Amino acid sequence: MPPWKNRQIVLEARPAGPPKLSDFRLVEALAAEPGDGEVLCRTIYLSLDPYMRGRMNEARSYARPVDVGQVMVGGTVGEVIASRYPGVSPGAFVLAYGGWQEYCVVPGWTVRKLDSKQLPLSTALGVVGMPGMTAWVGVLDVGRAKSAETVVVSAAAGAVGSAAGQIAKIHGCRAIGIAGSRDKCDHVVRELGFDACVSYRDDDFFDALRAACPSGIDVYFDNVGGDVLKAVLRLINVGARIAICGLISQYNAAEPSPGPNLGPVLVNRATIRGFIVSDHAGRTPDFLADATRWVQEGRLKYRETLVSGLEKAPEAFLGLFEGKNVGKLLVRVSPDPTR
Amino acid sequence: MPPWKNRQIVLEARPAGPPKLSDFRLVEALAAEPGDGEVLCRTIYLSLDPYMRGRMNEARSYARPVDVGQVMVGGTVGEVIASRYPGVSPGAFVLAYGGWQEYCVVPGWTVRKLDSKQLPLSTALGVVGMPGMTAWVGVLDVGRAKSAETVVVSAAAGAVGSAAGQIAKIHGCRAIGIAGSRDKCDHVVRELGFDACVSYRDDDFFDALRAACPSGIDVYFDNVGGDVLKAVLRLINVGARIAICGLISQYNAAEPSPGPNLGPVLVNRATIRGFIVSDHAGRTPDFLADATRWVQEGRLKYRETLVSGLEKAPEAFLGLFEGKNVGKLLVRVSPDPTR
Repeated sequence: MPPWKNRQIVLEARPAGPPKLSDFRLVEALAAEPGDGEVLCRTIYLSLDPYMRGRMNEARSYARPVDVGQVMVGGTVGEVIASRYPGVSPGAFVLAYGGWQEYCVVPGWTVRKLDSKQLPLSTALGVVGMPGMTAWVGVLDVGRAKSAETVVVSAAAGAVGSAAGQIAKIHGCRAIGIAGSRDKCDHVVRELGFDACVSYRDDDFFDALRAACPSGIDVYFDNVGGDVLKAVLRLINVGARIAICGLISQYNAAEPSPGPNLGPVLVNRATIRGFIVSDHAGRTPDFLADATRWVQEGRLKYRETLVSGLEKAPEAFLGLFEGKNVGKLLVRVSPDPTR
Repeated sequence: MPPWKNRQIVLEARPAGPPKLSDFRLVEALAAEPGDGEVLCRTIYLSLDPYMRGRMNEARSYARPVDVGQVMVGGTVGEVIASRYPGVSPGAFVLAYGGWQEYCVVPGWTVRKLDSKQLPLSTALGVVGMPGMTAWVGVLDVGRAKSAETVVVSAAAGAVGSAAGQIAKIHGCRAIGIAGSRDKCDHVVRELGFDACVSYRDDDFFDALRAACPSGIDVYFDNVGGDVLKAVLRLINVGARIAICGLISQYNAAEPSPGPNLGPVLVNRATIRGFIVSDHAGRTPDFLADATRWVQEGRLKYRETLVSGLEKAPEAFLGLFEGKNVGKLLVRVSPDPTR
């Protein structure tokens, strides 16, 4: 087994406010050899997700932070090139939590084998992966969306939001997106099939949102918080459910920003509930069955923004907070032999 | 049947900001005679509650507003003096929604007969009435407080809060009160049996609250909103439930005030839920059974602040928003023949 040169991106400094390129550093090392029960993978795709911003802070969020000097964490799809775990052989394609590096060594029990004949490998990081399951859990289990209800989704052109609105549509709801540009809104309505989409950057945002929700709002799937959440709360119905999936508008704030006035939550007996997909791991088989079938049937569409080369990961990650990507943001770390 | 002179307090003007005495007016009229299916009551006790502030606004909250010139609404305990409803006879004591007046005519089916031998009549407006049931529903059904959890209650010396903390204690929880003065806190701990109580007016409020909740906060029963809610959210545990019963800190605000930063709600997968006791009417028999027994056994204590004379109602009501009362605020409109 040759010693592979491994390139890694480590956390160089903890950002105060928005992260910068200089908070990351590219380092080189030799890839480790797998120990007993471990597998060595060559990374094909690295997922970039907003939650990674929380891992750069010193304070514990819902998971422990990345230490300075440590490889940034993240989900990956890779090919097994050496294995000391009985259930996984070299040549297999697997979903792993491999981090921002070209090669990873992980415990064999933590990976999930992928079938590239069933779905493109990259979907395991997006629509049929953590972002898709986040949407599915948020709409169905947390939001409890019912047929004919109005479901509003923010960051509707993103990996999670685009799936959330389509899942609401599949369940017979009216799906209204909120996104950051007219182009994104066009994509959300024309390609993804939402009933309407409004841009929060428009001056008439609130009036447009109200016009798009003539029967009020029953479920809000929130990825952003901030002023968008405040606008939504002015339109909620009695018994509304607000699923807080993310608060990206404040992830880079140095100080906690004020939240929405809660008067409408009391008056409408509404529920605001924060959720983290990893708490719902027991729902994974049901989600995979639904999402795989829906994607194969063309009912659940997705788009990917691909950047090539591990060294591009920091710049692409920063773009997440500026609304630069549409759909799932992925780094192609090495060629995908199945495409 | 003599024509009784009826004194009434009507809404004279809609307040912008804090209500004033001049927003009310005392008027005189003859008491109406009961029509078919109605009863005529002489009011003994009138309940004054924070929710009445919402009825003074033009905008619909969860119930329709009082019209200008209309009698202010409110719960009452009275004696039936004439009845054209088969189930209720003159001489009976009843709970009714009679409003701010000395005599009321109400549909017979809306009243509940009271047994003054079982409990003092006034408790039907307090600890064994709407405020007590609000506490019971909020702690048990909305907050889902479990044994050994830490339950924090704001406005802990008030009618609802004082019951909420005691109900938490009865269910084996640690109960921590928040009130507006050292005297109130002493009452809450010494007489009501809360484990601790901190004053939100103290400079070290946050530190004192943290010290009183060494295992964090699992349930927060909120009557006030505002800065107190913000402080509590900094101390919540994973899976915390926040039951929003009232937001008295903002009822008099002309503009919606900002709310709490929702980061802790996401990180801790917490739930914020607004509730209105009238949505839970089906729970009334269970509540009455619990509360009656607990009061008779001395496990659920209560205090009343009584003012005498209908004409004192407006001034006493304004005091609710300045934290002037301890326990249930009642107007004794006419003598209680059972005391």
